[in-house]
Order: sequence, then C-alpha cells, then structure tokens
Amino acid sequence: MQIGVCYYPEQWPRTMWADDARRMAEFGITHVRIGEFAWSRMEPRAGVYEWAWLDDAIETLAARGLKIVLGTPTASPPKWLVDATPDMLPVRADGTPWNYGSRRHYDIASEAYRAHCVRITEAMAQRYGAHPAVVAWQTDNELGCHDTVPSWSNAAQRRFQAWLAKRYGTIESLNEAWGNVFWSMEYPSFEAVGLPVRTPTDANPAHHLDFRRYLSDEVASFHREQAEVLRRYAPNADVLHNFMGFFTTFDHYQFAADKAIDVATWDSYPIARTEVIGLPEAEKARYARTAHPDVSSFDHDRYRTIGGGRFWVMEQQAGPVNWAPWNPVPAPGMVRLWAYEAFAHGAELVSYFRWRQCPYAQEQMHSGLNLPNNELSPGGREVEQAAREIAASEVLRTLAPAGRAQVALVFDYETQWMFEIQRHGASFDYQALAFDYYSALRELGLDVEIVSRHADLSAYRLVVVPSLAVIDDGFVDQIERSDGLWVFGPRSGSKTAHFAIPGDLPPGALQRVLPLQVIEAESLRPTLAPAVTVGGAQGAAVHWRDHVRANGATRIQAQFEDGWPALLSHGRVRYAAAWFTRELHLAMLEGAARGAGLATQRLPQGLRVSRRGGLCFAFNFGEQRSQAPAPEGAEFVLGTRELARGEVCAWRAG
Amino acid sequence: MQIGVCYYPEQWPRTMWADDARRMAEFGITHVRIGEFAWSRMEPRAGVYEWAWLDDAIETLAARGLKIVLGTPTASPPKWLVDATPDMLPVRADGTPWNYGSRRHYDIASEAYRAHCVRITEAMAQRYGAHPAVVAWQTDNELGCHDTVPSWSNAAQRRFQAWLAKRYGTIESLNEAWGNVFWSMEYPSFEAVGLPVRTPTDANPAHHLDFRRYLSDEVASFHREQAEVLRRYAPNADVLHNFMGFFTTFDHYQFAADKAIDVATWDSYPIARTEVIGLPEAEKARYARTAHPDVSSFDHDRYRTIGGGRFWVMEQQAGPVNWAPWNPVPAPGMVRLWAYEAFAHGAELVSYFRWRQCPYAQEQMHSGLNLPNNELSPGGREVEQAAREIAASEVLRTLAPAGRAQVALVFDYETQWMFEIQRHGASFDYQALAFDYYSALRELGLDVEIVSRHADLSAYRLVVVPSLAVIDDGFVDQIERSDGLWVFGPRSGSKTAHFAIPGDLPPGALQRVLPLQVIEAESLRPTLAPAVTVGGAQGAAVHWRDHVRANGATRIQAQFEDGWPALLSHGRVRYAAAWFTRELHLAMLEGAARGAGLATQRLPQGLRVSRRGGLCFAFNFGEQRSQAPAPEGAEFVLGTRELARGEVCAWRAG
Amino acid sequence: MQIGVCYYPEQWPRTMWADDARRMAEFGITHVRIGEFAWSRMEPRAGVYEWAWLDDAIETLAARGLKIVLGTPTASPPKWLVDATPDMLPVRADGTPWNYGSRRHYDIASEAYRAHCVRITEAMAQRYGAHPAVVAWQTDNELGCHDTVPSWSNAAQRRFQAWLAKRYGTIESLNEAWGNVFWSMEYPSFEAVGLPVRTPTDANPAHHLDFRRYLSDEVASFHREQAEVLRRYAPNADVLHNFMGFFTTFDHYQFAADKAIDVATWDSYPIARTEVIGLPEAEKARYARTAHPDVSSFDHDRYRTIGGGRFWVMEQQAGPVNWAPWNPVPAPGMVRLWAYEAFAHGAELVSYFRWRQCPYAQEQMHSGLNLPNNELSPGGREVEQAAREIAASEVLRTLAPAGRAQVALVFDYETQWMFEIQRHGASFDYQALAFDYYSALRELGLDVEIVSRHADLSAYRLVVVPSLAVIDDGFVDQIERSDGLWVFGPRSGSKTAHFAIPGDLPPGALQRVLPLQVIEAESLRPTLAPAVTVGGAQGAAVHWRDHVRANGATRIQAQFEDGWPALLSHGRVRYAAAWFTRELHLAMLEGAARGAGLATQRLPQGLRVSRRGGLCFAFNFGEQRSQAPAPEGAEFVLGTRELARGEVCAWRAG
Repeated sequence: MQIGVCYYPEQWPRTMWADDARRMAEFGITHVRIGEFAWSRMEPRAGVYEWAWLDDAIETLAARGLKIVLGTPTASPPKWLVDATPDMLPVRADGTPWNYGSRRHYDIASEAYRAHCVRITEAMAQRYGAHPAVVAWQTDNELGCHDTVPSWSNAAQRRFQAWLAKRYGTIESLNEAWGNVFWSMEYPSFEAVGLPVRTPTDANPAHHLDFRRYLSDEVASFHREQAEVLRRYAPNADVLHNFMGFFTTFDHYQFAADKAIDVATWDSYPIARTEVIGLPEAEKARYARTAHPDVSSFDHDRYRTIGGGRFWVMEQQAGPVNWAPWNPVPAPGMVRLWAYEAFAHGAELVSYFRWRQCPYAQEQMHSGLNLPNNELSPGGREVEQAAREIAASEVLRTLAPAGRAQVALVFDYETQWMFEIQRHGASFDYQALAFDYYSALRELGLDVEIVSRHADLSAYRLVVVPSLAVIDDGFVDQIERSDGLWVFGPRSGSKTAHFAIPGDLPPGALQRVLPLQVIEAESLRPTLAPAVTVGGAQGAAVHWRDHVRANGATRIQAQFEDGWPALLSHGRVRYAAAWFTRELHLAMLEGAARGAGLATQRLPQGLRVSRRGGLCFAFNFGEQRSQAPAPEGAEFVLGTRELARGEVCAWRAG
Repeated sequence: MQIGVCYYPEQWPRTMWADDARRMAEFGITHVRIGEFAWSRMEPRAGVYEWAWLDDAIETLAARGLKIVLGTPTASPPKWLVDATPDMLPVRADGTPWNYGSRRHYDIASEAYRAHCVRITEAMAQRYGAHPAVVAWQTDNELGCHDTVPSWSNAAQRRFQAWLAKRYGTIESLNEAWGNVFWSMEYPSFEAVGLPVRTPTDANPAHHLDFRRYLSDEVASFHREQAEVLRRYAPNADVLHNFMGFFTTFDHYQFAADKAIDVATWDSYPIARTEVIGLPEAEKARYARTAHPDVSSFDHDRYRTIGGGRFWVMEQQAGPVNWAPWNPVPAPGMVRLWAYEAFAHGAELVSYFRWRQCPYAQEQMHSGLNLPNNELSPGGREVEQAAREIAASEVLRTLAPAGRAQVALVFDYETQWMFEIQRHGASFDYQALAFDYYSALRELGLDVEIVSRHADLSAYRLVVVPSLAVIDDGFVDQIERSDGLWVFGPRSGSKTAHFAIPGDLPPGALQRVLPLQVIEAESLRPTLAPAVTVGGAQGAAVHWRDHVRANGATRIQAQFEDGWPALLSHGRVRYAAAWFTRELHLAMLEGAARGAGLATQRLPQGLRVSRRGGLCFAFNFGEQRSQAPAPEGAEFVLGTRELARGEVCAWRAG
Repeated sequence: MQIGVCYYPEQWPRTMWADDARRMAEFGITHVRIGEFAWSRMEPRAGVYEWAWLDDAIETLAARGLKIVLGTPTASPPKWLVDATPDMLPVRADGTPWNYGSRRHYDIASEAYRAHCVRITEAMAQRYGAHPAVVAWQTDNELGCHDTVPSWSNAAQRRFQAWLAKRYGTIESLNEAWGNVFWSMEYPSFEAVGLPVRTPTDANPAHHLDFRRYLSDEVASFHREQAEVLRRYAPNADVLHNFMGFFTTFDHYQFAADKAIDVATWDSYPIARTEVIGLPEAEKARYARTAHPDVSSFDHDRYRTIGGGRFWVMEQQAGPVNWAPWNPVPAPGMVRLWAYEAFAHGAELVSYFRWRQCPYAQEQMHSGLNLPNNELSPGGREVEQAAREIAASEVLRTLAPAGRAQVALVFDYETQWMFEIQRHGASFDYQALAFDYYSALRELGLDVEIVSRHADLSAYRLVVVPSLAVIDDGFVDQIERSDGLWVFGPRSGSKTAHFAIPGDLPPGALQRVLPLQVIEAESLRPTLAPAVTVGGAQGAAVHWRDHVRANGATRIQAQFEDGWPALLSHGRVRYAAAWFTRELHLAMLEGAARGAGLATQRLPQGLRVSRRGGLCFAFNFGEQRSQAPAPEGAEFVLGTRELARGEVCAWRAG
C-alpha cells in the first residue's frame, strides 16, 4: 500500500519546489508523477531542448527519496509544432479540423506527428532513462479522452485502407465479409473505401466495426512506438499508461498484450463518474456524495487483470472535480475510503490528483491535496490520515497482492462496439448491463475478476457473461473444459466476427453446450416490461428480450407471463433470455453462485466487502450506519464493526 | 386480395433460388418485387452490364407463375459511379457533402446523375420491358427517405433559380410576391437568390415555401424521367413507386398527377410508425405491440385516392423491424391482421418485406417471412394462414374494389409545409391534427376518403378540413356547389398562396360562405388550455386557438370560458376555432356526421370497422377482448364476433 | 409620459401614409421610429441613393407634428452589397459562413463592411441631420440579436490578436496572465493566438474571457463609428441604440460610457421573455398571459442607469408576438399595464412595435397596434385608452423623472461571462440568480436601481451584490467609504481579472471587510439541496454552495444542517454562502433591508408597486384580484384600489 501524487513543478515558482518535496515525503508519499503536459517547457522552440528546470525538479524530489513517474508530453503538443505541422490536427465528424487551444489536438493517424512523439520520447529517455529515481514512465495521458480516438481525416482514411488490405487481402474478401452486395455497397478497390461518417443513413455495421477495430489498433501502436523507445533507454523502469474509467473506445486487453505495459494504471474519479454514466436517476441521487459503491471497484477489478495482476490508481479524486455536470464536495471520509477500497482490490499504489490545486487555466476548479494557498484541503487531510495509518500498521504496509477470485465476469470491448453500432433499442448499453451484473455479484458479497474472453477461464467456479456478441468455437471449448458454472446474458452469440447473424441463429456456437435458438429478439421501450418470476423474485424484462426456443435437453427454469422462456439451462450453462430488473439479476446470480458452491450474503444498501492478503475490508457508501459482516470476535486491524457513511474497517479473514 | 413479397436474389446463393420460388408459389404468393438495390450487380463497372444473373432470377420466378415487380436501382448508385461523378453526392445543411456508404447518396439536382438514372432504366427496360412476367416497374425506392429530398448544393441552387424564373418571370414579381422589402431582402436578379439555409435568423417563409415547392417538383420530375422510359419499353406494365407512411416532404397528389403512376404503393411499418410519430406517450405505450389502430389506415385511405382508386402495400411489416428507437415483436395475430386491414381499405396486393431476413449489413435485425436459417418466422406463419384463408374463400379472393366513402378528409401537403415553416407554436403539427380528426372519424365507425384540395368534393356528404392554409375562390366555389356539410379546423384560410395573411384577415375567401374573422391567433403552451364544452363534452383548446369575431349571420355554437367563440357555423359550414382535446373532436364530428345524415357509433377502445365490396371487417387493436358490431344473425365469412387482441372478422354487410 | 410607435412606410402603399400620420397624431402618439431596415430602398444599387420616398415619409409625419427617430439601416445590408463584399458574411462556429436571406448577416469584424456602414450613415445624416422633426437617431438594430456578436472569422481573429497585443504588450505577459504553462498552451506570438472554438476540450477560460471582452468592445466601437458621424451632422439630436432584454453578450455599461448614447432604449417583449428565460416552469405557467411581474422592470431598472437616468422603451409588445416557442395572446389589460409600468420606472417614452401588423415575410405573426386590415387590434385599443388617460391627466403628462432608489443591485456583465465560461454546475446562471434577488426585493415592495460595479455606490442604504466574480481593492474601498449595508451572494470574489482563483482564496479582496475564506465550492444537482433555516424561513441551498470558513470576528448567522455556514456577517457586510431557495432570499433581504433602515412589505402574489415623481403605482400581474397597498384615504389619480388581473392604479405618495 503506497501513496503517490501528481505534481506539476512547471506550474509553480521554483522557490516552492524544495518545500513541496519535503512536505510530500513527510506526508508519506512515495511516488510523484511529473512531466506529462510540459512539452512547451521541454522544447520551447523546434529542436531547442531545455532540460535544466526538469533536471532541478527531479533532483529536488529525488533528494527526498521520492520515486518519479515521468510522463511523455505527447497529449499536449505545443503551438509551434502545430503551426509547423498543420495536418496533425484531428478532423471532426463534419470534416473540419479540431483547433489548438486545449489538449489532445492531434490526429493519431498523422505519421508526421507520430515521428515527433518518438523524437521527444527519445530525447527524454536519453536524458532520464538511467536516472535511479525515475522508476516508471507513462506514455501520453488518458489516450482517447474527449472522444479523440476517431479522427475523420484523409490520413486516417489511408491508414484504414491499408489496415483493411492487410486484414482481407483482396477487395472481394472484404465485400463478401461485410455483405456489400446489400444496397450495392460493393467496393472496386481498397482505395475506394471511405470512413463510415456522414452517410445519409447507417453505414454497414461491419464497416463501422472494422473502423473501430482499426482505431483500437492505432491507439495500441501509438503507445508501443513510445514504449519501444523507453524500453531501450530505461530497461528497468515500469512502462505504463493511465487509462480511464468506464472507457471502451479501444480494447484495453489488446493494448496491454505482449507486455506493452508493466502495470495497468487508471484515473479514478468516482463521484463524477457516477454522475455521467447511465445509472438510474435514483441511484445517482442516492450516491451523489459517495459515488456508487461499485463504480470504482468495477474498474479496479478490470484493470487488475489488464495489468496481469499489477495495477495502480494513477489519479485519484481528492475532493470536488471540475468536469461533471454537477460537482459536489464528497461526503466526509470518502477520499480516505477510496484509497482503502483500491488497496483492497489489489492496488499497489494510489496516487492522488494533484498535489496542489492550480488556480488558473482549465482545471482551476479541480481540487488537490492542497488548496491554491498551500494549506491542506479537506481531502488532503483525509489522505494524510490514511498515510499515517498505513505507516503505523505493519500489516497494512506489507499487505500481499490480491489473490485470484473464484468468480470471473467476462467483459468484451468488441461486444461494446457492436452493440453501440447496432443498439437496436435506444436504451441498450452493454457496459451498463455488465455493470448491473457486476454490481449484483458485489451486493452478494462476492469478489470478482473482470476478464477478457481470451483469458484462461478454466479455474473459475463461476463464469458470468453478461453478454458476448461473438461466441466462437474456441470459447465453447473453454466451457467444455471447465468444471465451473457459466451464466450467459441476452444477445450472447448473436453475431459473427463479420457482424452478421449466425447461420444457425443466435447463440451460434454456444448451441454446442446449450441447445436453444433465438427466433426473434426485441428491444423494449420503457413502458414494455414483460413480467416474470425468477427464483422467487418478481420482476420484468427491460431494454431487451430474446424470444427463445429450447432445443434438446435444455430446461426452461422460468417463463414470462406471455409464455416465452426467461431463464434456461443445460448442464452447467445457463441463459438469461432478457435484461432483467435488478432483483432478478440478484436472484439468478445468487442461484448460480450456490450452484457453483460459493457462499453469498445480501449486503445492506451501500455496504461492500473485499478480501486481500488475509484481510477482509468493509466499506460503507450508504446513507445509513451499517454493521460490517465480520464474524464474532474478528480481529480488526482498521476501524471497527460500526460503519457510518464514508467509513471503512478491516479484519483478519478467518 | 393478393399476397406479394420483396426478394433479393443477389443476396443469396443461386442454389437457393429455385426452392425459394417453389415455396413462394406454394405459399400463395402472386407477386415478387426484385432488383431495386442491385445496380452494382447489373453494372459492376461503368458501361459493363451483367444481366445473366437477373435473367436467371426472373426465369426462375416466372417458371412458378410468379409475377414480377422490377425496380430501377437508382436509390443505391454504386461506388464506381460516385467516384466518377463526385458532384452527384448530396450536400448537407452545413455545406459538406453526404458520403457514400449507405443508400440515397445522390443529389436529385445533379443532372449528370439524372442522366445515369435514365440510362440504367433504359438498359433494364430494353431487356425486360417486354417480358410477360414483369407486370410492374417500380422507380427508385422510397424517394425522400432519410430526409434526402433537400440537397443544399450549388446544383440545387441553380435549378431553384431557374424554377423561380419560370414561376415569376421577373425578379420584381418575386420580390413583390415574397414581400422582400421587409428587412431589405430584395434581390437584384434570380441569380442572386440563394437557398434558405444557414441564415442568422429565419429566412422569409415565402422563400422556404417556394423552395419546398421546387423540391416537390424535383422529386416528381425525377420519377417521370424514368417513367417515360418505362412507358416506352413496357407499355402494358404498371408503373409505380413505393411511397412511405406519414411522409409529406413532397406532394403525392401532384406526383401522381397526369397518370405518372398506375397504382399507388406504399411501405407500411405500423409499429415503428406508432413509435416515431407525434402521438401522446400513453397511446404509444398502449399500442406498442399492435400499432395505433389508425396509423396504417390513414395512409391506406390517402394512397387509395392518390392512386386513383388503385393501391398496394409494397412493403408490409412481417415482424420486428430495425429502425425505430425501440423495436418490439408484434402481438400475435397482428401480421395477419394488417393484411386484412389493407384489403378492407381497398388494397389489391399486400406485399411483405421481405422473403427472408438478411443476416448481414444494415437491415440484419429486420425480420422477414423466413428467418435467416430459412424456417418460417412467426410472422411468416401468420401470413401463411392468411394466404390459405384467402385461397379457400371465393368471396375474399374476388372481393370488389373499395367503393367511394361518404366522408372526405382534405389533406394538403402545402399546408403541412407552411405550418412547418411557420409553426408559431412549438407543438403545432398539421399532420398530427389531421390524424386526430381522422382517428376520431374512425372511432365513430365511419369510412373515410383522404383527398386533395383539388379533388372533386361535390359528392361527399361530409367534408372535413382539419386545416387548409390557403383557401382560394375555387375551393369556396366547391362548397357553394356542394350539398354536403363542411367542417373546418383552426388556421384554415390563414394564408395566401404567397405565404401572407389575407388582406381581409383569415379565413380569407372562406368568409364568402362563413362570415367570421380571426382577429388574433395564439399558440398554447401545454399549461395553457382554455376550457370549453362542445356538444355536452368537456374539454379544452390545446396547441392553438384562433380569436374569432363572428360576422353576419354566423352562429356561435360553443364558447370558451373566457368568452371567445369555440365552434361557429353558418349554413352547412362549421368552424372549430381551436385544436380541441380528443373528446371535443369526437363530439364535434359526431354532431357534424349526424347533421350530414350519417350514422355513427362509438367503437370500443382499439376496435375499428371498415367496409369493402359488400363485406364489413372488424379489427381489434385493443388490449381487451371486444365484440364486433355486426348485426344479429350476421353471416361471418372470416372469424367470429368475439375478437381477442390481434383478431379480425368479416361479415356480409346488410 | 409619451407614446411612440415603430413604422415602416416602405412596406405600405404611399397612399396610406397621410392617413397613418393623421391617425397616429390623433391617437396621441408623439414619436415615430422609421428607416432602420430600409437600406435596399435608400440605396437600391451601389452608390445610387433614392431619398425621395424617405423625404416624403418624413414630411408626411412631420406635417402632423410627429417627432421622428431615424434608424441607420446597417442591420440589414442589401444583397448587392453582400455580393460585392462576400467576406462581410459572419462565420459560424463550424467555420462555414452565415448566409444572406434574413438579417444581421454581417461580420462586425469586417472593416470593409464597417466602412459601408459609416458611408450610409453619413449619407443619411447629411440629408436629415438638420431636419427639425428628426429628434433622435438609432444606430443599427438590436446589436447582437440572433447570437450574432461572435463571428468565427479570420477577420475576427486578426482583430482579436491586435486587441490582445494592445492589452498585453508582449506575448509573455499574455502567457503569464492566462496561465498558458498549463497543458503547454504557451503561444510564441500574438499572431499564433486563435479563436477559442472547436477545441477538443475546453479552451482556457482566460482565453474565452478575453475573447468576450474583445467582442464587447467590438460592438461598442461599431456603434461609436456611426455615433461620431451622427454627432457631426445632427448635434442636437439624441443618439441611441435599441438594446434587448436579458441580453448580456456585451457590456452595456461600457457601451454607454463617455456619452456614447444620450438615452438608453430597449425592446420589451415581456411574455415571450418570460417563456424563454430560465424561470421555474411553474412561474412560466402562472404568468404565461401576463409575463412575470419582474421581467420588464428588471430591464427598466437596468437601462435607466445605463442611460444615466434617461430611458425609453423603443419597442413595446402590443399583442402576441411570433418568436417564442409558444405565443399566447396577452391577458386583457396587459398591453396598457406595461406602458404604465415603464413610466413608473422612469421611462420618458414607450414606443410600440409596430403601427400595423405586416401581413408578409418573417414577422407576419407579430401583432401591432393595427391589424393587417387596418382596424385597431385589441392591444391597440388598450394603448389608445392609455394615451387618452395620459392626455387627460396633467399629473401623468408632466410626471417628474424617476428619483434615485435607496437600494442598489450590482449587475456585472463580466460576471455573467465568467460564469457562462465556467458554469461548473449545469444549472448555474448568474443572471437568473441576479433576477431572483431582484424579484425578492421587488416582492418586498422596494424600488431598486441596477448598477454597474463601477458606479458610485456610496449613497445607497442597501447594496445587494447577487454575485461579483472579480472584487478588486477599488470596490472594497467603496464599501469602506459607504454607510450602507452590503449583501453578497455566493461565488463573489472567486476570480481575479485574469480568470484565476485569488491567491488568498475567494472572496479575495473582500476579506478586507469580511474575514472569511471559501475552502471549497460545490455545484448541486437538483436532488442535492442542503437544508437551512434563515431568519425563521426554512429552505435549502440549490445550484451552488460555498464551503466557508469564518475568520476573525465574522459571525455565522445561519448554518446548514451539515454544519457549514450559510449566512455570515461582519459589520455592515453580509455573505450568503449559497444560492438559496426563494423564501430564504426573501427572509435574508428582508432582514438586510431592516438592518439598513428600509421599510418592506410582503406583497400579494403578482402585485408590484413602483414610485415615481410623487406617485405610487400598483400593478396586478397575478391571477387573483388584489388590493393596492395604498394608505387609507389615498388620492388615486389612476384606477382604484381594487385591482383585477391586468389592472393598474396610481395614488399620490404620502
């Protein structure tokens, strides 16, 4: 358990640096991230590098024993570079360029800009790659933020065409794969393929899907170009990138593949996230000052597997932020609670954004550990408390990494893309469905690992697949090899890899282990909610329902009032034929967990438990005081059984 | 009563065609529409025609006795043509072109593209014009779909200028007609007139109106260019176009004038239509699985007159569709019911979209009579039942065409354009008002003919005019010649043909037969609902109210609580001074029908009756079981008196 | 008290002019505004002036003793001028030009167009500057209407760069002032600075702020260029411009500075204004036919000080208008009431828009004093009554100007810009907050003066500052010099002039007289409403809350339930730490008024009182009949104590 912070020495007088470093060290901070937006100070004019200030900053921090995470500044190219390379500006969907004046104003398809990124990365790495205090390198910053993955430029079109040529070999293969005979969409050559934008009506979903795959690959290769340079000059440092929460525009599992990163880090802003994601309004209201209890851990449990077991929170909310529609002050205790929550889910490091609130420019309303006048902020005081507690506790300080959970939830980026491209029902959102499954599992007291469909799933007792658009034979092989229990949600197996309906109808290859067919499917307007009872719980389908025919030995475990099957099973495989209301998800997953031999408990509203390294933590996000579900006589190493809102406790697991 | 289907042989292996044709014939299908999106297969490269596959397809179908409706493929020009003719791409309101990649990516003002359309039409007509199985030709597909009538291009501007020069002769006449002295909008020449787009505030409504008239003429001339070619090579085939439901961007009466079509056909998707039109939310909820009971018949009764008595449903919803915000599966029975409903309103043919669901590309979630795996879909089984019933029943098979109704409802496209251009109240929608009048008449059990303001209206007992923006002397002449009773809704006669307020105030020339003046008019926010009682029914004005002064012998039949007249009459002419709540429309039209000597009945919720060829049909769209209002001892030729949701019956009319 | 009218002789046959002038004079009208949209008639071709018609119009009106307000026609440049000067078209945020075809289609940064404006102004002034009947000149029309202040053009960019160079001298100063080290936003030169538009995420708020200051200066200089010409040729005429209601895109105090205008005039459309501003829906519903009782007087009390004590209503709503989402007919009496309301707030002249409703073009649904058929409209009859009453009453005819109120409300345009640029909470709107404070003061029966932060505030008994983003030492000096009581709302002093947080935290310099610091601030989603009791009234914070620490001798007068201070005071200075619900604003301001020695009264709903020249007026905007709060035995010079909706009375103040 270590505490870090994000720091921008270039934004403060040099006279403050030494005192800042001293206070950080005294505070208990171990890691400081710097540099990631400072290109205009590193290279104020083309080819003129100024390292003196950065040398000083690094030495000042290192002198206090602080470890440095150094960022490449490629998320904010300076004006002189844009003026010299105007084609590097990304292009909006309407065909006009985005302008200079904020950040992320670059086209990821610009080969000229990519060359500059490699160049500045190499210049930095040459100078600091061997510095003993520089323990990690971050590439760029929040790739894809502000919806900047797509650029609708000529450069993107050319690279997309090349990507397609590599994928399909011949244009006839592409036309066949996409089904371009439909509406005479057949292309005479790869050079004739455009971007799927500004078409009078929907472009071919297969066209969209390949464009999203291409974009995802572009993000990964952009990072890898920098990572290769860093590996060369700083072979012993961790290479990483700070991902975002609830962000699905590129495939993070693929991004991280082949050791492209050493540790997954992500930026956690739970209150703002709760405000902006598609939660029911009542949940947003209830958790406005605490964040939804599962909104951070969902990403902790996702990025932990993306990092191969290693993850950090690179930026942690330290108080009110500036970017949500509304930005309340967190409830007392939450800033401290979020740190323990991250640790309980396996974080090695929780690094706060930022050391001191910047009084000017775009993020002046974003809090930090210190106020602009350099006194500790309310959140800063909470972090100080946590840092003191950890320093004082051997058991907390040396907590073992998170062990492997017995429950896996398969999360699939391509499924997100496919159901965004073809939502079919206005209210269908795959990630929201996955989150509801995850949240139900957490409400049942279970630890969860969020995994790729390509992961080895053989060792899990329970594998939950909220939906998985494409189910291929390899995936079904895993089911056959597994001893666990598998639960599939609606729309599973509804597509081929070329974005078509499987020839033998959905769920395609899954029929090998679960003989049933989806005859028709329907999206449900809010007033259409077919009623059903599952495991004694009454509820309804919302958003989506598959009309299913059970084949072979498949059993119908629950039926809608109008007769359609709601829940079906065959051996160790179960199928939910609809997006259910929450109570039904709880009942269904409770039943599945029991079937898998896992103990569950229904936690009080807003309470969550997590296990790590022989400890069990409990967190209260709820409005009411709650009791942690510790056994009688449990030995508490943090807090007590009684938890007010915003409080946390931990006891030694039996 | 005949059943047809839409079929895309190019989308399926040739090995399936013969079996498809056999099954169609056995099914009872008589007509198959093909070809309308297959340009890239007919002409895969510029000037290189490939007819062999289409020859085969036609022969295969003809061999089973199937009649063919052949479509020109001009709604989906292939990529090579777009690349060779880039100016053919239509232009969006922001000035950027629409892109290739879906369909309807052509500028109707592109003379180069028009020439290609004539060319491909001629090539097809030369080859198949004399083929005995090809009984009809469809031009293009759903002209105007995806809001593609307006193209904001230079080509459109030039053709609009020429259209204006022809209409006005001199620029002085145009300036005078539009009132361009206002805001110094006077043009020095026709070449100086631009398109009414991207103006800092509203452009002159007269400018907008003439642009919409121009666009409507463009759509008609685009069809006529193809129709002329087809007439030359296929003089015995029907020429037609498949119109859309609730679509008003061009004037269908004018389109069809001068025998430009032989039969009006339209594409009927009642459930999606119910979801997207401006119905009250409660109605959308109630009819989410059955469609609103009047949403299809409104267009049946409109297109029947547009076709001069002859109409087909060219595409009929066969199950869930893919394009509404939500797409539920229809209630059992509805797919069959819609066929009988169309027949009862006079359809010669109901053709389903489509033979088999296409598993790939944009419409993969659009159902057909067969599932992608080639088994009959639930909707397909319902159509099979209807086909069997018709085949088994001499009376159904040989049903006479629809007779002329005694009630006319005047629907006017220019009124729609004018009140779109100058809505004045955010919630004012002319078509919604017309639909509410229509629906009230249908709820009263009346058969209705929807007619143009240029039709001969002398023979109707009751003429209902929900509103008519421009009332000229010729129209008033009709009233004077008629023996019927006339009901006018609000805003009638409120404009001149040049989009101005009549000099003697609204309702302009109507004052000849109905002496009253509209002193002021107001649009009503939802919370403003002046109360009124009409014919014993309590209700209110919504959306709109005219403040009327009764002149001469005009009688005030109902008054608002604040004293303004609500319903006025003079002789056989009545005027509703506001958009009323539904109960008032019912009461007012019931009174008018009685005054016209017509019998009415208040049908139970969701029940509708229609008469054709000596039969009376009843349809239950409602949630509850209902009784058909057949006389005692009626002889049922289809179904029984008891109607569950989705059921239909028919009996011999007394 | 004088009545005027807007008139467009060019829109009517010359044969009507003499009769119009006669009827105006008989009506009691004294002033007629003409000319402001007639450029195409004054100069139908480049350099060809046609004055004959305007000579005639002026003589015809002057012959009846009518005084003329002559408008320069620069809001509607004719088509030949646009064609000759295409770069004069303003540019939209997406980079495409706005088109000709309505009005305000000019780029205020176009130097070519500015030269044409000076030229036409000079041509008019040469001809009519010395005409005795032309008593006033209006420049342009409603500068900024239709959101036309910003033009995102190259011309604007060049002039903005020059404006910045003048303001900052060196680019280093600009970079320092804006904090451009953040995100590497440092500019190498003024020529490198772009417009703050189409950036991937927010541009620097300091960048936005300076652009808005620049735009405000552009509007002022555009007016001054014309005003200088007019002063030269018409030294004895009033120069004015017709401002709009609730419009804040430029700083009206700065616009009017240095005698740039002689009288402030504005265009008052109270019902449409009530519909479009951010009022609670219940208020919009309640006042849909009367307008909110404070919506006009808010601007009367603002423009009176902008005009240095002199103000007119240049356009007054005379019946239903055409431009709001819904446009109801005003309740009977309102058109007359609004005239007296303006007079009671100090208006010298109330001029109605327009003499006769124009039956064609964009504003054909906008009422006037006459209907298109030339009979008086319902509103016209009400104005006729008011004109008769004034003519008949010596006391009304010769009413003294408004005296100075004892309550000042500081309204600050820069604060509006800053909190628009950085709203932080989606529902935060400074003008709405200022309006709520104003409305509460009016509900307490107080007369209010709305003043600039640069005004001399020393003589007011009570100074209310709903919020003031930047509080500098000069402003605090005023507080120290004043004997009055000062009330500050939330976010006061939260920014520096360079759009940064003050180094000693908000409220910055205000701490000199009010020792407290805002530690954190939060925006509140609608469901977050911290409860508080102020002065016995129960309520809550909405939209915004500052978390405040009281320092020194500052007293906490009210606390939120969660412990944060709600209302604080120190000597004569009070601070509201949140946007309160209305009851709390009333209680707080009532307490403040008492503290300042001012008498208050809680007026019945919809009733308002205003004092001028020894008279006290009462107006009933409410739904219920009310009693004017006149003392017993009061002498009524207009109306009686009993006021039905829409009625007004006036009595001699004791």
